[in-house]
Amino acid sequence: MPYFDAASAAALHPVARQALVAALDEGWADPARLYREGRRARMLLDAAREAAAEAVGCRPDELVFTPSGTRAVHTGVAGALAGRRRAGRHLVLSAVEHSSVLHSAAAHEADGGTVTEVPVDRTGRVAPDAYAGALRADTALACLQSANHEVGTEQPVAEVARACREAGVPLLVDAAQSLAWGPVPGDWSLLAASAHKWGGPAGVGLLVVRKGVRFAPQGPADERESGRAAGFENIPAIVAAAASLRAVRAEADAEAARLRELVERIRARVARSVGDVEVVGDPERRLPHLVTFSCLYVDGETLLHELDRAGFSVSSGSSCTSSTLTPSHVLRAMGVLSEGNVRVSLPAGTAEEDVDRFLEVLPGLVAGVRERFGAPGGAPAGGGEESLVVDALGRRCPIPVIELAKVFGEVPVGGTVTVLSDDEAARLDIPAWCEMRGQEYVGERPADHGTAYVVRRTS
Amino acid sequence: MPYFDAASAAALHPVARQALVAALDEGWADPARLYREGRRARMLLDAAREAAAEAVGCRPDELVFTPSGTRAVHTGVAGALAGRRRAGRHLVLSAVEHSSVLHSAAAHEADGGTVTEVPVDRTGRVAPDAYAGALRADTALACLQSANHEVGTEQPVAEVARACREAGVPLLVDAAQSLAWGPVPGDWSLLAASAHKWGGPAGVGLLVVRKGVRFAPQGPADERESGRAAGFENIPAIVAAAASLRAVRAEADAEAARLRELVERIRARVARSVGDVEVVGDPERRLPHLVTFSCLYVDGETLLHELDRAGFSVSSGSSCTSSTLTPSHVLRAMGVLSEGNVRVSLPAGTAEEDVDRFLEVLPGLVAGVRERFGAPGGAPAGGGEESLVVDALGRRCPIPVIELAKVFGEVPVGGTVTVLSDDEAARLDIPAWCEMRGQEYVGERPADHGTAYVVRRTS
Repeated sequence: MPYFDAASAAALHPVARQALVAALDEGWADPARLYREGRRARMLLDAAREAAAEAVGCRPDELVFTPSGTRAVHTGVAGALAGRRRAGRHLVLSAVEHSSVLHSAAAHEADGGTVTEVPVDRTGRVAPDAYAGALRADTALACLQSANHEVGTEQPVAEVARACREAGVPLLVDAAQSLAWGPVPGDWSLLAASAHKWGGPAGVGLLVVRKGVRFAPQGPADERESGRAAGFENIPAIVAAAASLRAVRAEADAEAARLRELVERIRARVARSVGDVEVVGDPERRLPHLVTFSCLYVDGETLLHELDRAGFSVSSGSSCTSSTLTPSHVLRAMGVLSEGNVRVSLPAGTAEEDVDRFLEVLPGLVAGVRERFGAPGGAPAGGGEESLVVDALGRRCPIPVIELAKVFGEVPVGGTVTVLSDDEAARLDIPAWCEMRGQEYVGERPADHGTAYVVRRTS
Repeated sequence: MPYFDAASAAALHPVARQALVAALDEGWADPARLYREGRRARMLLDAAREAAAEAVGCRPDELVFTPSGTRAVHTGVAGALAGRRRAGRHLVLSAVEHSSVLHSAAAHEADGGTVTEVPVDRTGRVAPDAYAGALRADTALACLQSANHEVGTEQPVAEVARACREAGVPLLVDAAQSLAWGPVPGDWSLLAASAHKWGGPAGVGLLVVRKGVRFAPQGPADERESGRAAGFENIPAIVAAAASLRAVRAEADAEAARLRELVERIRARVARSVGDVEVVGDPERRLPHLVTFSCLYVDGETLLHELDRAGFSVSSGSSCTSSTLTPSHVLRAMGVLSEGNVRVSLPAGTAEEDVDRFLEVLPGLVAGVRERFGAPGGAPAGGGEESLVVDALGRRCPIPVIELAKVFGEVPVGGTVTVLSDDEAARLDIPAWCEMRGQEYVGERPADHGTAYVVRRTS
């Protein structure tokens, strides 16, 4: 049963499993104790720190183990902001960061700090110049992911790190998605990562703070992990995390090349065989194992359910698959279609046959969902009223776009269709539909109980 | 090789190990995902929550899993204080809480809150009346451990919980040391615990917040674990924690009775066979498996080292075994001897023979350490100067007390010995020596480069 959601969590690597089970017997005691069980635990912890530091490319005393990648980000952002409080309270980040970074920024804002979000282009990438332009004299910290978790686009970390150095601002890199594939390039100041993304166990994150970076840990004091990660050390999991990072790195180049080809195949075949689909993210400067596409006239949750029934586990940034009913902030920031969104992230070792089978079943499943929603089939014909209004109030994605597409052929070239909708996804998906169809998106205006989106037929 | 430091960390229970290894295969995926691996992980998490809640005696939706017991305390204290901010910013706790509670209180004070520490008696126990008397109209939260981690004394939680209810103040119970033995009695409001104390894995704490208790989680938002424990859930460890709690509970009554007898044996035999020893903590209202004693004229670190060489792993609250060179705050609050301090905490399943062997080797090891330090042997003889001054400046525990004892026989009954010392432990150990010897402790006064401690010979 193929699992294609490695970007969310990877199954335990065999090396991690072996190391974890062995360390359960050797690494359960308190490493601060002087007796033999404590000394043994301390040795395991020290060795794991050295191995992890080597993989990251830092000194062992710059690296601490946290209970998760999320905690590494929370601790790193809060500690760096507090350490630079004298410089100011301004935080810079990209618009497509992981929620752990966004939530840290929101907490900072609620506490009186200021935040600048650097926008991204349609591939999900920040422009180094734009990022550099956001840095100010009172900027305490800048954050940038090494690669995006939803669309796989690599960020220009080295260039941004250089700009940050020049401005005297520390850069925190969220390397959760890329650390398995290699060290993060450039002269960054802080780094956070998460072991379960590379096949390590849950319960382990990494936080690196380069020597010389001002850092003031927040919250109650605790002497463990240089005062940066409170609580009893989870040594068996830490040992497994370090061992598996080393193991995946040994296989990384060969596996990246193999998966890159499989992803290339998905990108090409989906665009060809599904139809009315937008493959998003940078096609070249990207993670080797991840591809995301959005299918017009498709409900993301239904498609995920169909794929699950067919044996494929994938995820989605569509609004209907989230508890908040808003589309992924990443897709929104990129300005791309969010409906029928599917993220495929291949774990190391993914079999070629499984990818081929996925590509075989996908078009039929998408067509089935579209049929169920009554999605329009043919091309617009034209000839009726100059302007039409479609009332999709109270209807969720993908219905508003489907209703738009259904009547679009009824207005002549130059005419307009206005869609009334109170679904948050429509704000993203109606302009995206226009982009895909080569039609003109005129704009939106408030309407009773929702928003009116106006589209002009240009062909 | 007998390990007698269960209060610090217990080796993994066989049930925990089995559950952990099984859940590595079934519980690694993101439980928020809709596909089968996610659903399976969610089922494991839900079942673990139900099992843990049943053992605690709460509703499953009142319990969240945190990355450690320390984090459960930090989160619980911060969230309860913030939730009751309107009531005031006063925090009450006992003087002998675990460092995670004390550090939370220090952070609260640094943030402008006020803290009252309720003192304990010589057994380490708070008086319910004194605790109730510390509650004020602006008290936001009260904290009390279920049993002390260093001396094993049980606290009157049910009585204190009643007083807190009457005052309308929520009570947070740190149940880290006692949860293995049974549910915490009384009408408490919040509870924190740590799995590795009961033979569960590292990386799992419990935080219980009763329905109706005002609680405002601090730090960046995260939707997992009811917003009370950020980060990817460590489901294999959580499953193992819940399974082992259930398992140790099934054996708890029988094992408690057995260990209680072994501890009784240690209490009696140490007092008889070691000499110049103070067995501390409540002899009856105590944890079944834990006993602590302090040996006059002995350096705690050296004794621990000797015990380790003899194959016994124990811990100590002596100043010389801590990085801060101050004696344990628990022993200090109790006003008992801190030098040569040894805590023995027996893991479930401890063999009677190991305890007997410990009792056989201990007197010889203590005598050896005393000899090495030149500790006085016989009883005071008397007859010299009316008052003597001993300069122990720059000397560490146990030297100041040894120097006092050496010359004490030289002053006549009614005469005084003044000890000059700059060692923090002397402040506790010189009065404790007087108590043990039935001599009068006159008091202390500042002196050049340290403190002068005055003792009068009364017999």
